[in-house]
Amino acid sequence: MTLNIKVWNEYLHETRGDAVVVANYPDGIHAVVAEGLRENLGDGASVTTATLQDPEHGLSDEELDGTDVLFWWGHIAHDQVSDEVAQRVVDHVHAGMGLVVLHSGHYSKPFKKLMGTTCSLKWRNDGERELVWTVLPGHPIAEGVPHPIQIAKQEMYGEFFDIPVPDEEIFLSTFAGGEVFRSGVAYHRGLGRVFYFSPGDQEYPVYHHPDIRRVLSNAAQWAAPRGPRRALTADQHPLGWFES
Amino acid sequence: MTLNIKVWNEYLHETRGDAVVVANYPDGIHAVVAEGLRENLGDGASVTTATLQDPEHGLSDEELDGTDVLFWWGHIAHDQVSDEVAQRVVDHVHAGMGLVVLHSGHYSKPFKKLMGTTCSLKWRNDGERELVWTVLPGHPIAEGVPHPIQIAKQEMYGEFFDIPVPDEEIFLSTFAGGEVFRSGVAYHRGLGRVFYFSPGDQEYPVYHHPDIRRVLSNAAQWAAPRGPRRALTADQHPLGWFES
Amino acid sequence: MTLNIKVWNEYLHETRGDAVVVANYPDGIHAVVAEGLRENLGDGASVTTATLQDPEHGLSDEELDGTDVLFWWGHIAHDQVSDEVAQRVVDHVHAGMGLVVLHSGHYSKPFKKLMGTTCSLKWRNDGERELVWTVLPGHPIAEGVPHPIQIAKQEMYGEFFDIPVPDEEIFLSTFAGGEVFRSGVAYHRGLGRVFYFSPGDQEYPVYHHPDIRRVLSNAAQWAAPRGPRRALTADQHPLGWFES
Amino acid sequence: MTLNIKVWNEYLHETRGDAVVVANYPDGIHAVVAEGLRENLGDGASVTTATLQDPEHGLSDEELDGTDVLFWWGHIAHDQVSDEVAQRVVDHVHAGMGLVVLHSGHYSKPFKKLMGTTCSLKWRNDGERELVWTVLPGHPIAEGVPHPIQIAKQEMYGEFFDIPVPDEEIFLSTFAGGEVFRSGVAYHRGLGRVFYFSPGDQEYPVYHHPDIRRVLSNAAQWAAPRGPRRALTADQHPLGWFES
Repeated sequence: MTLNIKVWNEYLHETRGDAVVVANYPDGIHAVVAEGLRENLGDGASVTTATLQDPEHGLSDEELDGTDVLFWWGHIAHDQVSDEVAQRVVDHVHAGMGLVVLHSGHYSKPFKKLMGTTCSLKWRNDGERELVWTVLPGHPIAEGVPHPIQIAKQEMYGEFFDIPVPDEEIFLSTFAGGEVFRSGVAYHRGLGRVFYFSPGDQEYPVYHHPDIRRVLSNAAQWAAPRGPRRALTADQHPLGWFES
Repeated sequence: MTLNIKVWNEYLHETRGDAVVVANYPDGIHAVVAEGLRENLGDGASVTTATLQDPEHGLSDEELDGTDVLFWWGHIAHDQVSDEVAQRVVDHVHAGMGLVVLHSGHYSKPFKKLMGTTCSLKWRNDGERELVWTVLPGHPIAEGVPHPIQIAKQEMYGEFFDIPVPDEEIFLSTFAGGEVFRSGVAYHRGLGRVFYFSPGDQEYPVYHHPDIRRVLSNAAQWAAPRGPRRALTADQHPLGWFES
Repeated sequence: MTLNIKVWNEYLHETRGDAVVVANYPDGIHAVVAEGLRENLGDGASVTTATLQDPEHGLSDEELDGTDVLFWWGHIAHDQVSDEVAQRVVDHVHAGMGLVVLHSGHYSKPFKKLMGTTCSLKWRNDGERELVWTVLPGHPIAEGVPHPIQIAKQEMYGEFFDIPVPDEEIFLSTFAGGEVFRSGVAYHRGLGRVFYFSPGDQEYPVYHHPDIRRVLSNAAQWAAPRGPRRALTADQHPLGWFES
Repeated sequence: MTLNIKVWNEYLHETRGDAVVVANYPDGIHAVVAEGLRENLGDGASVTTATLQDPEHGLSDEELDGTDVLFWWGHIAHDQVSDEVAQRVVDHVHAGMGLVVLHSGHYSKPFKKLMGTTCSLKWRNDGERELVWTVLPGHPIAEGVPHPIQIAKQEMYGEFFDIPVPDEEIFLSTFAGGEVFRSGVAYHRGLGRVFYFSPGDQEYPVYHHPDIRRVLSNAAQWAAPRGPRRALTADQHPLGWFES
């Protein structure tokens, strides 16, 4: 059974001529993330991409119906994502679609709607060392992941990270400056599952890192739906309705 | 230190001449809930009320600033609550205000925004027996509560209840028809705390029940803020910012 | 990759001539549980059995080394399980083995050691209806399971069930008498995973029920190890030990 | 209502003439922990101490009956604590007593029995900087605690820490070497509550640190019992037993 994955990217940093960003991601962050997923999942996955610039941001109901797991990368254009599309993504998660939110996507519309919190955090961009430690080693997203993952240079994201208490806390990161961050956390929302993973930034080649790619591939498999997509609604039931 | 509690009610069922509702709550559900809180908390609490009909629904920033814990009862007029006021309530919870959401308030705007799910459920109004069982007996909201609380007649709310996995699951209800419901669940959201409690309906005198009043009084104390109210924002920090 | 499953049973009720038990489980409860697993998992699993009467209860280190997931059914002979074997099972769970504990196994030595609580509960054996409701529908153990599972006759297990707060609460049961029970709960312990599932008793043919078999098959797959078995120990580490 | 707190210490490091330890804790670690609790809780608490050397380690049933919250510090003599006393402490926690386990107490008999895991961890004693970050700021144990607490010199405790997934994760620590540790975690066990807090060691004056004292005082109040102590047992119940 093939896993249908779509990698979404606002795709703005990469098209503005910033040499560092272009060097890391000449065809866009989405291309590199997709490449990593294809590399690890092989025939098990069909990986497509979509960007902010596509009609309906490439996220029509038809497209989302055919998506098992959606990856989301956004940073400077969260408010350019239409409310309608953001709500559509949320609705599909509630109905069973998996969602993997990356790095600065913590402030994206779909993630904030799904969390119910401000999703604010502390940050500093000094290109410092990040170590990603596994604290739930039996979890499928941690399978085959070294302890810790070592990232030479990365933007610091630090606590307090205003998210709900995670259903599953898998990774904690530390930074050279001494901060800590809940960097890999998972949630159930309706019939769907959400994984947030902070490592990854336009200025650093983090999505080329084989361990990071391992995490993202594991996350895709973990977030895959466990049944048919369906909307949850409040229903009236007669006495004994379950006696079929 | 006095706990400032405000009980909010849409206050519509009670003013439409329905004899059953009027018999249970002649001055409104809010009046009865407030009475129970005053009875149990005495000088420890200052309890006020507000309704949909008040200017800004009685929930101006000034009023919320002075509220430690807000109780919320709504049913048929969720969409008459202005988006601005709903967001304001959410903002105050994020900044530290406690919120206790009652029964049909599962579909209120503030609760849905804080949960990030559809909050849908199954229901049947047959006036059947509800038993409320404690499954976290060391929790302060369960203090002094019998096991089970017995409610002679109540509307059935049943699973699947589309809420996030509770941070603290305190009560589970069963109904004569065989259904189960996670009827008392607690969440952290930002600096604030949220408790949802399903027993209570306009057609049944549940808010006069001494055990239900005990739960609501315990919940008010549990949801009280633990520090000054303050907004959480994403902040940039220089290296070593914490070294003061 | 084949999943190696071992179904353990104290195997005493079935050999004492109780006509009801023999009618349900002529070759032992373990045989019927194993049959259900084989039926659902086919070539994906190799299912063996072991009983209290076997040397070392059939649970030598060698046997456990070759076991991915162990099922445990016991009732009247918990104290006949040697402390050494009980600790060995616990050690294997810590090191990565999956464990599925059934019904009266809540009082088994391995389960109590892994939980750290008394595991006490309320009970009544009146052959009453049990309904098993799914409260985490996106969880793999709930895949393909009806809502609710209906069991015509079963022993009642009721709250308060003295277990730790579950990491994942998947099923809640109600009984005709009005009680509720957290009947399907999951835990991480070390590198291993533990699932407790209460439906199933020697006096009722519950392990022939196709929906119950579905749950147990799902649980076997969920509890499978995610990496090599290894003991966790407290280690001293020099500065920078992770910089390889 | 006075909170009865007992601080237990194996009291061996301090009596062996180690100049560093004696300088930090001339009358024993227990004396300094008790002093901090008295300082913060004043008339609200009655604080006593007990040590390994006392008859029954100072933890007779009678003593524990009169104890609301027990603090536990041990390191080199875990195996000198009698199994009987260790089980007695566990039984009292199950029945409602609060327990606060400090630093190297992660390997104490009562803590391991209550957790059901190996409680192993990584460590290095280089006297390095520890920062203790709050990740559940609305929690009562975090009240009045700076973000982060800064400890100039401390032994490193690092992940993976083999504990069950915490019911409430309140503090995360980072170390100068780059490691992370879940340093303040809380659990329900039966009717009792358990808080583990890692900062504090015989070689460093951490229990004199006002912020650490604040955490311990908050923890004592949080862990206080919410009702009378009582043993939980498996009970048979007739149909309708709850209808009094």
